[in-house]
Amino acid sequence: MRRPLLSAIAGDEEIEAILSDEAQIGAMLEFERALARAEAAVGLISADAASAIASAIDRFRPDWDGLAIGMARDGVVVPELIAQLRSTVPRPFDTAVHHGATSQDVIDTALILCLSKIVPIMIDRIDRLESILSGLRDSQGSLPLMAHTRMQVALPVLVAEKLRTWSEPLARHRLALHALTDDLLVIQLGGPVGDRAGFAGHGAAVADALAAGLGLSNASAWHSSRERLVAFGGRLALLAGSLGKIGADICLLAQTEVGAIVIKGAGTSSAMAHKANPIRAEALIALARHAAGLAGSLGQAMVHENERSGSAWTLEWLTLPPLIIATGAATRLSESLLRSINFRSPDEAQPLDPV
Amino acid sequence: MRRPLLSAIAGDEEIEAILSDEAQIGAMLEFERALARAEAAVGLISADAASAIASAIDRFRPDWDGLAIGMARDGVVVPELIAQLRSTVPRPFDTAVHHGATSQDVIDTALILCLSKIVPIMIDRIDRLESILSGLRDSQGSLPLMAHTRMQVALPVLVAEKLRTWSEPLARHRLALHALTDDLLVIQLGGPVGDRAGFAGHGAAVADALAAGLGLSNASAWHSSRERLVAFGGRLALLAGSLGKIGADICLLAQTEVGAIVIKGAGTSSAMAHKANPIRAEALIALARHAAGLAGSLGQAMVHENERSGSAWTLEWLTLPPLIIATGAATRLSESLLRSINFRSPDEAQPLDPV
Amino acid sequence: MRRPLLSAIAGDEEIEAILSDEAQIGAMLEFERALARAEAAVGLISADAASAIASAIDRFRPDWDGLAIGMARDGVVVPELIAQLRSTVPRPFDTAVHHGATSQDVIDTALILCLSKIVPIMIDRIDRLESILSGLRDSQGSLPLMAHTRMQVALPVLVAEKLRTWSEPLARHRLALHALTDDLLVIQLGGPVGDRAGFAGHGAAVADALAAGLGLSNASAWHSSRERLVAFGGRLALLAGSLGKIGADICLLAQTEVGAIVIKGAGTSSAMAHKANPIRAEALIALARHAAGLAGSLGQAMVHENERSGSAWTLEWLTLPPLIIATGAATRLSESLLRSINFRSPDEAQPLDPV
Amino acid sequence: MRRPLLSAIAGDEEIEAILSDEAQIGAMLEFERALARAEAAVGLISADAASAIASAIDRFRPDWDGLAIGMARDGVVVPELIAQLRSTVPRPFDTAVHHGATSQDVIDTALILCLSKIVPIMIDRIDRLESILSGLRDSQGSLPLMAHTRMQVALPVLVAEKLRTWSEPLARHRLALHALTDDLLVIQLGGPVGDRAGFAGHGAAVADALAAGLGLSNASAWHSSRERLVAFGGRLALLAGSLGKIGADICLLAQTEVGAIVIKGAGTSSAMAHKANPIRAEALIALARHAAGLAGSLGQAMVHENERSGSAWTLEWLTLPPLIIATGAATRLSESLLRSINFRSPDEAQPLDPV
Repeated sequence: MRRPLLSAIAGDEEIEAILSDEAQIGAMLEFERALARAEAAVGLISADAASAIASAIDRFRPDWDGLAIGMARDGVVVPELIAQLRSTVPRPFDTAVHHGATSQDVIDTALILCLSKIVPIMIDRIDRLESILSGLRDSQGSLPLMAHTRMQVALPVLVAEKLRTWSEPLARHRLALHALTDDLLVIQLGGPVGDRAGFAGHGAAVADALAAGLGLSNASAWHSSRERLVAFGGRLALLAGSLGKIGADICLLAQTEVGAIVIKGAGTSSAMAHKANPIRAEALIALARHAAGLAGSLGQAMVHENERSGSAWTLEWLTLPPLIIATGAATRLSESLLRSINFRSPDEAQPLDPV
Repeated sequence: MRRPLLSAIAGDEEIEAILSDEAQIGAMLEFERALARAEAAVGLISADAASAIASAIDRFRPDWDGLAIGMARDGVVVPELIAQLRSTVPRPFDTAVHHGATSQDVIDTALILCLSKIVPIMIDRIDRLESILSGLRDSQGSLPLMAHTRMQVALPVLVAEKLRTWSEPLARHRLALHALTDDLLVIQLGGPVGDRAGFAGHGAAVADALAAGLGLSNASAWHSSRERLVAFGGRLALLAGSLGKIGADICLLAQTEVGAIVIKGAGTSSAMAHKANPIRAEALIALARHAAGLAGSLGQAMVHENERSGSAWTLEWLTLPPLIIATGAATRLSESLLRSINFRSPDEAQPLDPV
Repeated sequence: MRRPLLSAIAGDEEIEAILSDEAQIGAMLEFERALARAEAAVGLISADAASAIASAIDRFRPDWDGLAIGMARDGVVVPELIAQLRSTVPRPFDTAVHHGATSQDVIDTALILCLSKIVPIMIDRIDRLESILSGLRDSQGSLPLMAHTRMQVALPVLVAEKLRTWSEPLARHRLALHALTDDLLVIQLGGPVGDRAGFAGHGAAVADALAAGLGLSNASAWHSSRERLVAFGGRLALLAGSLGKIGADICLLAQTEVGAIVIKGAGTSSAMAHKANPIRAEALIALARHAAGLAGSLGQAMVHENERSGSAWTLEWLTLPPLIIATGAATRLSESLLRSINFRSPDEAQPLDPV
Repeated sequence: MRRPLLSAIAGDEEIEAILSDEAQIGAMLEFERALARAEAAVGLISADAASAIASAIDRFRPDWDGLAIGMARDGVVVPELIAQLRSTVPRPFDTAVHHGATSQDVIDTALILCLSKIVPIMIDRIDRLESILSGLRDSQGSLPLMAHTRMQVALPVLVAEKLRTWSEPLARHRLALHALTDDLLVIQLGGPVGDRAGFAGHGAAVADALAAGLGLSNASAWHSSRERLVAFGGRLALLAGSLGKIGADICLLAQTEVGAIVIKGAGTSSAMAHKANPIRAEALIALARHAAGLAGSLGQAMVHENERSGSAWTLEWLTLPPLIIATGAATRLSESLLRSINFRSPDEAQPLDPV
């Protein structure tokens, strides 16, 4: 469901575009193109077939209504997509499309292709956040700040100490995203039951060539082993959580009575003109909690039945993309928010006149 | 984010339309119209002002881009919406718009107006499901069926017994939805801090008239008391859970080796022509698990800070609508699925030749 | 696992005792006694058998090690418990024990018997909380209090308005617990596959007599329909959520810089002598979030497979009791906390000297 | 709350002992001993003081009732524990106990010391599971097995292919646990507000020596940055999820009608003598779902307020230990279960006579 108004806060256009139906269908077609080429390289299909398939994909325009009908019927879009694509490939090459593969090979690899674009975006955004925090440290790090523990005034620290606690987890998230990249960005290729039996003994070679063609790492089939995706989702939820913690700090320090942070461009109220609402900071908390919940639900999708679970897989689709978008939104809002805060030394921090 | 392909399974057009931005903005305008009328009735604003506001609302076309910008800035759409609306109301009546109210009054009441359409739809759908189950009982209830406990063959029962276990919870959900209706479908009217101080002593009378005007029940302000909405979400998750249980049963009984249920119109496979995949039944399981997770996250939104929590409220927006839609989709799929199943007596149930 | 130190905050001795293994085994024996009596009344077993069973139960002392071994072997304690009990009933009456029933009849009914003690405790505690809040309203309701929305100073209200927002949800929880009592406190009696076939046509009569004997309501078998229990858990999570909201308010209002609430008996710090930590208020937030999460997980237990799911049922045991205890702890802490707060009018509320 | 019967399935004695109050208090005392030694090494306290503290710790027997009272009062056990310990250290050395540290330094480091024992146990158990699976591959890998996708018969594979899908994720979990070890097993040392100000400029040196003394890695203070612990919990939930997937497969393949796996020592029924219930396999599913839910709730604990959140920290205590134990139980059950399964070739797999 489209909710453009909510998306103004909780959306992320850049990442949503990468996860859109259009982008995912596009990635599926890239899979089919690369598969045909890989199969031609090992002689499973002819070079002419691979060329015909590639040409057809170049020209292919899906019948979207048909895809939706196929999705509702089959629970996956692939049977209908392949049928549509085949109908545009001249005989006898049409039967070479999708040779030996299964729907899950296409869909999972397409998702990974999308993630291969999202992971570097997330890393870039973390880099930028670290850079903004580093700038804040340079400009405001030597200011005094009252620390609070258990919601009570504790002892004074420097602003630099606060910024350290915001920045260090981001550095760890960056490292973790780098570390999981190789393991995550792998092809899916198993055929109907995961054993690559449909590749007539050439499964390993096809997989090698497919991975090379798509710029992904190779891996044995993981149709029913989803821990990589769930781990990725979990890391995103951690990232959203660290940003939610920054949001909580900013909300608390920007309280009228505390006044240790001033937010430029804070939100207005329909009823109280004096309000300066920490909208983005609050949204970071909401996104962190939403992401944590989605990560928990995504974890339920680990329990696949046998070689492929339609229910667990569908649950993954229902939870992982919103989790990615929520985390994307959190990084986006964090950048905007951190660019707009100023710490105030305690003597400046007089409570505003509330009315 | 729009995901039309996934929505072909997990969406619900009828309910999504009721929750759309357009519908919610429309409901917000109904609130402002009814508020003006109620305030005119008690003399807080003039009858002319109320008329001018009503006329302006009749003609009002929101600037959607402006609303999105306002949402991003203020965390709520209302300040910008009111500003847009006021600009279309002739002076001096423009200042009478939204008199004494706060953003949350508008947004929460608008949500409740939307829910007032959704609750009867859910009840109607439950009615239909019960009716389909009743028909199945009439036509197939006397067939024998092997019962299974703990994933093992137990003892034979009648199909009627199975149908009883599917139907009775639905009857209880129907009763529960009826029971919570009066408590749920209430106005929100508190003004900026919930005490109706902005209505110059006429708060109770305005609330009475507003409730009457909108066809909702009256209630004291509940800005920071969200248990009604969370309870509603919880009930939907229970409903989705009961439907997920039906889905699990159908998946298990339609297994090739069990063959106790045959599903007409089962899904096809891109690789295995003999497959008859229980798509809708699997989707019911996925939706049940998604709904349970969302209900848990929605529960996190109970912890409002003071008179209004931007973070908890935003979390509610992130979780309740998807939960409603998931449950709607589950009811929709259940109807289609239950219309397409046939129980087979054990002697008919020979395992299909798998290849 | 026992964690007495954590239980000092997050435990509830009174409720834990009701849910203890000893109490649940005791309730199972009450079920067997009442079942025998009910079966004797309809002539399924002899009156002598029922007497012999009742006498044996009076004297019965379980072999706990044996029960644990049986539990590990069978996934339920009942086969071993019945074997132990039968061995103490003189022949030929031993075979009359547990006649026609199944493990789930015993375990579920025993749980309901425990809940029949817990529900009134929860209602009593809510009554007490409402009474404390009413006393606060009498003594402090007319004090001024600065309201806060979105973590910012909003407008002044009376303390009575704050107390209203704390109290009204409790009243609704009380009503809801009353309303669900009749539906929740029902026997479970279905026999192995839920159809009461083992009672030789006397199923309805046995169920009537069993319900009467145990002081519970009658119901058809609900082995695989868990929405009553999950709804109960959901209501507890809502209650914990409302108390968590009170905790959040108290944490925020007791902040050093705000000083609008003073907590008597606040916690001390190992390092900062000036601290007055709002321990119980913070624990209320933690318990609310824990309860919401457990309620979400409990919702996953709705998806029973066929006539009995060992996995879903076990998940229920893993989640419902901790959820009940967390809510119990929240009610217990709330009472203590609300008895120890004082609102301070703004002129008294000077920030404490932090060091 | 102790629940020995449920623990017979869902508990883990070895791991519970490591997380017990006794073990955690013991680890806290090791922290204080090592801190004193580290502080003596840099001259912050005298060598005599460190010796006196070490001797006192050797002889120290906590007053457990007093600790529970302190816990309830302070929300952490440390102020009372330190007071008890100090009372056993001769003057003037008593004041040297806990010098410059804060409760969270003690509690978090003690938890990490416990985890430093648990991580290798988990890795060992994974090793054992992989070894059992390897043995199964050797003995039964060449048997045919019907694969199932979307709950339907798909195509035949070898048992070795099934075992591959069970084993490969375990290898990845092992690697991941190794990879996170260095990052996870770090000291916590920050003093009251995390900046080590109480160590008179010797903070870094004290931390070095403390880490060396405890056999942990060094790290800057992470009082309010919990992503390491939450990531650890997330990895455990993934492990539990992979084991839950094995459990689901075994439940499905051991179904009476499928009969592709036979489980030795399956559970008995109180009512149906022919049943062979896949107790451990079902419990694996329940534990996977419980772990996923707990991981989601643990994620809520990322949102710390400022320098220390009592509520988020308490939530961590409520969720991480049960998550660890659930995963431990899952590894324990998996070992027992995998040692007791036998695949049956399709011609052997005749449905058992159900009654």
